[in-house]
Amino acid sequence: MRIVIDAVGTDNRPAPDIEGAILATKEWKNTVILVGPEALIKKELAKHNTQNLPIEIVNADDVIEMTDKPADALRDKPNSSMHIGLNLVKDGSADAFVTMGNTGAAHAIAMLSTLKRIQGVKRPALSIIYPIYGKPVIILDIGANTDSKPEWLAQFAIMGSAYAQNALGIHKPRIALISNGEEEVKGTPLLQEANAILHELPLNYIGYIEPPDMHNNVADVVVTDGFIGNIMLKTFEATTRYMVNIIRDQLKSSWRSKIGAALSRPAFGRVRKLIDPAEIGGAPLLGVNGVVIIGHGNSDAKAVKNAIYQAQQAVLGNVIQTIKADIANMPIGSNADGTPEK
Amino acid sequence: MRIVIDAVGTDNRPAPDIEGAILATKEWKNTVILVGPEALIKKELAKHNTQNLPIEIVNADDVIEMTDKPADALRDKPNSSMHIGLNLVKDGSADAFVTMGNTGAAHAIAMLSTLKRIQGVKRPALSIIYPIYGKPVIILDIGANTDSKPEWLAQFAIMGSAYAQNALGIHKPRIALISNGEEEVKGTPLLQEANAILHELPLNYIGYIEPPDMHNNVADVVVTDGFIGNIMLKTFEATTRYMVNIIRDQLKSSWRSKIGAALSRPAFGRVRKLIDPAEIGGAPLLGVNGVVIIGHGNSDAKAVKNAIYQAQQAVLGNVIQTIKADIANMPIGSNADGTPEK
Repeated sequence: MRIVIDAVGTDNRPAPDIEGAILATKEWKNTVILVGPEALIKKELAKHNTQNLPIEIVNADDVIEMTDKPADALRDKPNSSMHIGLNLVKDGSADAFVTMGNTGAAHAIAMLSTLKRIQGVKRPALSIIYPIYGKPVIILDIGANTDSKPEWLAQFAIMGSAYAQNALGIHKPRIALISNGEEEVKGTPLLQEANAILHELPLNYIGYIEPPDMHNNVADVVVTDGFIGNIMLKTFEATTRYMVNIIRDQLKSSWRSKIGAALSRPAFGRVRKLIDPAEIGGAPLLGVNGVVIIGHGNSDAKAVKNAIYQAQQAVLGNVIQTIKADIANMPIGSNADGTPEK
Repeated sequence: MRIVIDAVGTDNRPAPDIEGAILATKEWKNTVILVGPEALIKKELAKHNTQNLPIEIVNADDVIEMTDKPADALRDKPNSSMHIGLNLVKDGSADAFVTMGNTGAAHAIAMLSTLKRIQGVKRPALSIIYPIYGKPVIILDIGANTDSKPEWLAQFAIMGSAYAQNALGIHKPRIALISNGEEEVKGTPLLQEANAILHELPLNYIGYIEPPDMHNNVADVVVTDGFIGNIMLKTFEATTRYMVNIIRDQLKSSWRSKIGAALSRPAFGRVRKLIDPAEIGGAPLLGVNGVVIIGHGNSDAKAVKNAIYQAQQAVLGNVIQTIKADIANMPIGSNADGTPEK
């Protein structure tokens, strides 16, 4: 297997990106292709012992910043690590692309100028994979689309289910729509229409859930519009940080609790591991014609390594072929007059 | 001041409701009017020493269950504690109504059959008040409305600002719209229109914020559509519970950390207090023509007492009169052809 790593993706590029790639290839023996400014990559690689490791370098002069607008990155930086890396997947020279860089740019470049959409996919979706009590839950869309159509949500369910089954190894993944109540009468018109479509599809669709159900492990694939998903994700992350902050502040406030905190340190270490996004590393952009895994800009080498693991699992699980077949076998769409196809 | 307490609101009614009312009147000397089945109230009151306390009882035979649909409670239980209690506020016999009961029913009964809307208010909004690092933030709407119109959101901002200033004592409250990014180009069409309206109003409007900003105390009034607000609130609560659960599980997993946890108990007690909804007790239903404070069904007596405190502050701060004046002074609406009024 050959996996492309964006060497200039993280906020601290290229160190975590390259160290993560080295760790991954040491452990899993796959070829990693580092894409980015060649001199920069070589200089960083020289800090490591990479003898006999299957590491290749492909030069890409343009570097996309986190602050670049996706449309600008797409148009003005045709020699970026994302353009060149994604084209390696497109032309068959590699099996997957992994980046910790600008999510919007990766989305735009994958969808509009390199891999393009899988036939029949209306909108690709960004996902996140969260470990809830140690079990992965995939949530999509978390920001690629706002003002979604019901058919888009139904396709997010198809793609998320294919990923959960084939890359995460979850048998018959339970799919749910996020709503403001479990009763079928709840939800916006968007949700009610998506709910009706999903009930007709040959998927393990369990209906509406509320955010707390997500934490109760009732669903493996959580489907939502990108605006809602983005708000949920950011609320989740912010609340987690807030809790960690207030607990730390209070533990520091007396000698007694400082000693208590010292004794509890290994337990808190395990808590941190349970909620650490680096444990998963990255999540797929689903609906484009190739495996693309995107992680946080603040990723460390461990997160990069784990994102590469996600890419490998997606390739081994034939996720793209499965999505192609599932999208073809479950046509959802609108006729010219706007009525849903059956 | 005379405050009506729904005696049969909490899940454990009437004990926490009545004990909370007693605690409140002992501390603040206001008259509390307990509304509910008279025999039940008298039996519960007999467990306490209420000599010389200004406690009145008003009988109401119908009891609204948490599982009652709002429309059913509204129509089928005309002698409920909510109908009768809210009518006491409507006819001037009391200054405010406090309930820990069915939120949807309280909303429907207040809006449609008793207090009705304040003139000019398009939609009442449910709110929640969160203490972030000890400072209150009011978030609205958290579930009264889905598929909001831009004008509704603008009015939520007006009402939330009036409440923050007059009941929470926040000078020139900073108002923000929840969005998926801070740039003005972000947000759904709904947000972009609401944003444009809010920039024109004489309010301390600071623009879009993302959920993490809420935890960074950049805004005092956080405005959102009821669907999004509901999802945010439930994600916040679920994440808080999840964090507490995984920390407890890990602390229990070794003797060393058990001892550490024992030493840290006072610190964790303070953490619990910082995130405990009972510290605020309840939050206003804004836009109806009278002070209505609604709290959690699982409230204890302390939460009920604190909800009564919220009601007192709203009455003392002339919140209703302020909202009436502000809504009249800041007309926002649509002409018959759908164009916004200026």
